[in-house]
Amino acid sequence: MSTSFSLGDTIREANSEAVKRMLEAEPVLVDVVTASEAIPDLEEGMILHAGPPIDWDRMCGPMRGAVAGIAVFEGWAEDLSEAENIAESGSFKFRPNHDYGAVGPMTGMTTLSQPVLVVENRSGGNRAYCTINEGLGKVMRFGGNDASVIKRLGWLRDKLGPAIGSALRSGKGIELKSLVARGLTMGDEMHQRNVGCSSLLLRTLAPELSRNVYDRTELAEMLAFIGSNDQFFLNVAMVLGKAIMDPVCNIEGSSVVTAMSRNGTDFGIRVSGLGEEWFTAPVEMPEGLYFPGFSAEDANPDMGDSTIVETIGLGGFAMAASPAVAGFVGAGTPSSAADFTRIMGEITLAKNPEWTIPSLDYQGVPTGIDIRLVVETGIAPTINTGIAHRKPGVGQVGAGVVKAPLVCFEKALRALAMRLGV
Amino acid sequence: MSTSFSLGDTIREANSEAVKRMLEAEPVLVDVVTASEAIPDLEEGMILHAGPPIDWDRMCGPMRGAVAGIAVFEGWAEDLSEAENIAESGSFKFRPNHDYGAVGPMTGMTTLSQPVLVVENRSGGNRAYCTINEGLGKVMRFGGNDASVIKRLGWLRDKLGPAIGSALRSGKGIELKSLVARGLTMGDEMHQRNVGCSSLLLRTLAPELSRNVYDRTELAEMLAFIGSNDQFFLNVAMVLGKAIMDPVCNIEGSSVVTAMSRNGTDFGIRVSGLGEEWFTAPVEMPEGLYFPGFSAEDANPDMGDSTIVETIGLGGFAMAASPAVAGFVGAGTPSSAADFTRIMGEITLAKNPEWTIPSLDYQGVPTGIDIRLVVETGIAPTINTGIAHRKPGVGQVGAGVVKAPLVCFEKALRALAMRLGV
Repeated sequence: MSTSFSLGDTIREANSEAVKRMLEAEPVLVDVVTASEAIPDLEEGMILHAGPPIDWDRMCGPMRGAVAGIAVFEGWAEDLSEAENIAESGSFKFRPNHDYGAVGPMTGMTTLSQPVLVVENRSGGNRAYCTINEGLGKVMRFGGNDASVIKRLGWLRDKLGPAIGSALRSGKGIELKSLVARGLTMGDEMHQRNVGCSSLLLRTLAPELSRNVYDRTELAEMLAFIGSNDQFFLNVAMVLGKAIMDPVCNIEGSSVVTAMSRNGTDFGIRVSGLGEEWFTAPVEMPEGLYFPGFSAEDANPDMGDSTIVETIGLGGFAMAASPAVAGFVGAGTPSSAADFTRIMGEITLAKNPEWTIPSLDYQGVPTGIDIRLVVETGIAPTINTGIAHRKPGVGQVGAGVVKAPLVCFEKALRALAMRLGV
Repeated sequence: MSTSFSLGDTIREANSEAVKRMLEAEPVLVDVVTASEAIPDLEEGMILHAGPPIDWDRMCGPMRGAVAGIAVFEGWAEDLSEAENIAESGSFKFRPNHDYGAVGPMTGMTTLSQPVLVVENRSGGNRAYCTINEGLGKVMRFGGNDASVIKRLGWLRDKLGPAIGSALRSGKGIELKSLVARGLTMGDEMHQRNVGCSSLLLRTLAPELSRNVYDRTELAEMLAFIGSNDQFFLNVAMVLGKAIMDPVCNIEGSSVVTAMSRNGTDFGIRVSGLGEEWFTAPVEMPEGLYFPGFSAEDANPDMGDSTIVETIGLGGFAMAASPAVAGFVGAGTPSSAADFTRIMGEITLAKNPEWTIPSLDYQGVPTGIDIRLVVETGIAPTINTGIAHRKPGVGQVGAGVVKAPLVCFEKALRALAMRLGV
């Protein structure tokens, strides 16, 4: 691989612009609306999923389970087996969330009637969308599709989503950059640990929720639902990541990664100077710790759009902020968490001055992954991830660390070189 | 100072029992009731205050301001000047909170009609009490006493206190040991930084509050009041500390510190084997950082019962958990926060296996201050503290670190030696 163009002014200037847009972003959680309202191009029978493009025949077990479940939820099939038959027949349109301004955790199902969190990036003028976190256990993002899963999605659509939407509209929205900054001082890295930001978000939302929800029993149920889910903020972190990164796309010559994502079969990245093209490789298995009763044999390969948080310098890149997560994901001793952040500094272009880590004397998180640095150093981005059971609907069986496959970056670098005429 | 008895079986066994009681404690936040109900010995005209005993003539400015204010609040005086005259005449009974199972931050006013948080120590069977945190700015704990301060105390008494009480009774109480354990993974040290525990407490209380408060506007006001105060949990941390330490008192021969406290004039400690005797010295000035517009000239000497949190291994003792607080209190670089925890390990008898610090690979907080170790090493307990303006009612002007005066420990050690016949 030639790096003869690595010092080119074009790339340097393009990357400087990319990093500038990342650091200037002003993501604000402004609303919850139905996906059909947020994304006018969504159609009947269209299913947005996590990761790069994939069709039914190559989907992993949990992704298929989620597809069947969401089809029943949307009323496109009477039951799961009819849904599978329709999928098999090729009648559903499968599209990546990323193509529609959206992201979704794990299987990442996004369809017409689901409520989506809306984050507006006030510096870019763009909006991004993500469904609401369903909680732990048997949930659709892990391929769950039984009656309890469908019922909860109905409650999110009919009750919680509209309530959060009203609360956000009657407030002034919630400024997320400073919320994440606080989370970094509270041991969150915003991927596998969100207890700080989830709690801060709830305390910000609670007064407006109580003004907007008239039924006290329903209100209590909503507060308990949000309050009992330490990962509630994950979907917010993801959509703020998408809102930050979309304006970074399509800067001619830039070698900055704008998305990393996986569909349970393929891992894909997008690069600013290469527009919407995906550079893919087979997704890897996470290495990590399993919950009691589970082992690596139960694990599904890595999945979800949640790697958008690493793309903006959080997750594995911010491990130093979260020694507790280093233990949780089996990444070594908590006291060595800072090593991950330091190493990610070698493949990134900047430190974010607004997202800083107290234990590193307020050094900023490593920001702006440069595919040239990844290829030159051979250091793959570290991703903190939840591990799904390979069978649909069992849920999370562990947490671990996974590496982005280097081949994605090598492919992208070749494409960038060609595009720049090197 | 002779240490010839330092290896004595009596002391060793007594201290072992003291530490055992500390570690076995099971503090649960069970209720909010009026102080008169919680503390039957409270009388008309009796004012419980922070620190060791003190009378009006020796009280600092903020303490006097608070006394005048609370007398107006209780209806014992028409206005502040009448209250001061009554105080001057000697008609109020001033008593330490610690003598009545209570603690209070800063000036620490506790009187008949105030609502108090009730923590039950289920291993000791005892209860302890503390008023509800008033928020920041002009508040009675900093000597504030104008109409806004009195009005807020009325709202706490009439609205928020009863609501939290109902919420706690209709739930099963809130188990505090695990809450504090989580807080230690979220950057709290529970003295100058409580944002994690305050947020966790709110999310636990919110559903029951919403079931118990019928007026949605009032509910929203309560949720916003709690949610906007990062130090809301401080008073809970204090009362859980008191609930843990009271059963540790009066173990014959024990050299373990059961209370450290200050009234703005004197610093005092109590020692298990020496019952309710206070060993005092002039209180020191904190060294720290001042908020914009304030300087050391504005500072009042150190004040409050909040040092009970250091007595149980939190606050300055848990600095390693909270690199952000090390910066906030001006205790050096955040990355060197662990030094404080390590040094406090030299004057304590145990590590708390349930309160651990991720960045120290889950080492427990140093627990059980031994006056012999303090005197032998010359290492004074490190206390993280808020700095009050010396004039009543201005509020907090900074935060810093203060050392417990060594002379308190020397006096206590002499008394223990005498008592043990050395």
